[in-house]
Amino acid sequence: MPRLDLTDLRADHDPALAALLRDYTELKDVRLRAVREPAEGLFLAEGVEVIRRALAAGHRPRSFLLSATRADDLAEELAALDPDVPVLVAPVDAFAALTGVDLHRGALASMHRPRERSVAEFLAALPAGPARLVVLEDVVDHTNVGAVFRSAAAFGVDGVVVSPRCADPLYRRSVRVSMGTVLHLPWVRASSWPGDLDRLRENAFVVAALALEPGGDDLGSFPVPPRLAWMLGTEGDGLSARALAAADTSVRIPMDPRVDSLNVAAAGAVALWETRLRTPGR
Amino acid sequence: MPRLDLTDLRADHDPALAALLRDYTELKDVRLRAVREPAEGLFLAEGVEVIRRALAAGHRPRSFLLSATRADDLAEELAALDPDVPVLVAPVDAFAALTGVDLHRGALASMHRPRERSVAEFLAALPAGPARLVVLEDVVDHTNVGAVFRSAAAFGVDGVVVSPRCADPLYRRSVRVSMGTVLHLPWVRASSWPGDLDRLRENAFVVAALALEPGGDDLGSFPVPPRLAWMLGTEGDGLSARALAAADTSVRIPMDPRVDSLNVAAAGAVALWETRLRTPGR
Repeated sequence: MPRLDLTDLRADHDPALAALLRDYTELKDVRLRAVREPAEGLFLAEGVEVIRRALAAGHRPRSFLLSATRADDLAEELAALDPDVPVLVAPVDAFAALTGVDLHRGALASMHRPRERSVAEFLAALPAGPARLVVLEDVVDHTNVGAVFRSAAAFGVDGVVVSPRCADPLYRRSVRVSMGTVLHLPWVRASSWPGDLDRLRENAFVVAALALEPGGDDLGSFPVPPRLAWMLGTEGDGLSARALAAADTSVRIPMDPRVDSLNVAAAGAVALWETRLRTPGR
Repeated sequence: MPRLDLTDLRADHDPALAALLRDYTELKDVRLRAVREPAEGLFLAEGVEVIRRALAAGHRPRSFLLSATRADDLAEELAALDPDVPVLVAPVDAFAALTGVDLHRGALASMHRPRERSVAEFLAALPAGPARLVVLEDVVDHTNVGAVFRSAAAFGVDGVVVSPRCADPLYRRSVRVSMGTVLHLPWVRASSWPGDLDRLRENAFVVAALALEPGGDDLGSFPVPPRLAWMLGTEGDGLSARALAAADTSVRIPMDPRVDSLNVAAAGAVALWETRLRTPGR
């Protein structure tokens, strides 16, 4: 099934097609997809640019759902694919009927999730010497997860560790808000929390909690270690008491007392900028 | 009408009550409210904390819609009000019927919009000597407007200028995302764009465009003027050509070339942190 033009939609009569389309259906149901995508080993890339980034980063496609225009845009990438990967081409008007949602970008790809690595494997693949990590504890908002990845990638961070209950970086909205950076920035999900922070320390990382409350160093005068893991907490309550206890140090961003806190994405961007190692754009 | 307990809801039989409730209805219709709220001279404060901040900042309430619990929480503030201000108390279950939306926070207040000032009046009220402004051009996303205000307030910015087509800082979602900081941070809407940038210059401000493209100074080595107005552009296209042409200088945040840009709220937070004047929390 190299390329199938879905000019008339008879998925209900074609079990093979219906099975393919199942990757794309019920896109609006956040809770359902948040469960389904990891369990079924898939994630979705949306829009030509993000699909290109996913392929360039080595992600393996399961199938494509494209308008004719977007299929033309992706002609080069599609020609280079394994010919077994189904490419479904449908009129834009039909996307809503196929997937339950309007897809103005006209391009979706279902991709195989990368194999899950352990924190030890993830750490072993990092550069020796100076390095920067971000550690996210229980950030449940996909927009914030995506925004933190975008800033982390912009400021040359080497990788991201997410806690077991953190929202999925490969969930559709995270991917979009991250501008596709979740597709190339190395990341790993901790299996033991906060126990896996010990693995970071064993690899010479100093775990610095970006804490909302007073106390600890001010960001502007914090003595920056060569290997630094910034730990950021949940939107509502900040870092948990046990994560704070497991950190090596605590750093605060000084701010006007009438403002309780910064948004986690803004706070992360500021901390990563202030302690950047490399600015590869220069 | 000091306090009215709406245990049975007969707004349809009571034109005075129906008129009061009109401030709160159709809350979900973004487009409608984005038009109605400025035109009808109102804005909404949501939640006990934001209502307190609005009152503390001197905003004048038109009416309150509260659950009994939240009315108790606000007892002190309500006792200090002009007794003519209607306080409508309704069971939480009734909020949806009254307003068309679930209000989990159980507290809404309709407030009079502050009188619109000219840019000249706004500038005259600023402190002499070193100062910081943010200028937003055509940022249409209420979340981003609110997030920029939150960071601006956190880092001690003296005020915000929004372009004629920028989203409303007093729109409900902007207020919420800003954590209520739009209620105390001085701001003004420009009437002439980009012409009003000349007013800033006449008041000794250097207008620095935070530009996505290469060129201009790097943020890390930018010679920071005593009076600085950071101009931030729209999410999609960045600053317009005429706004860039009207700026005194252009500054970029160096970043990894695989990342096109930062989100406007993240970029703003970084620029404001790097060029902060005062850190009042210290």
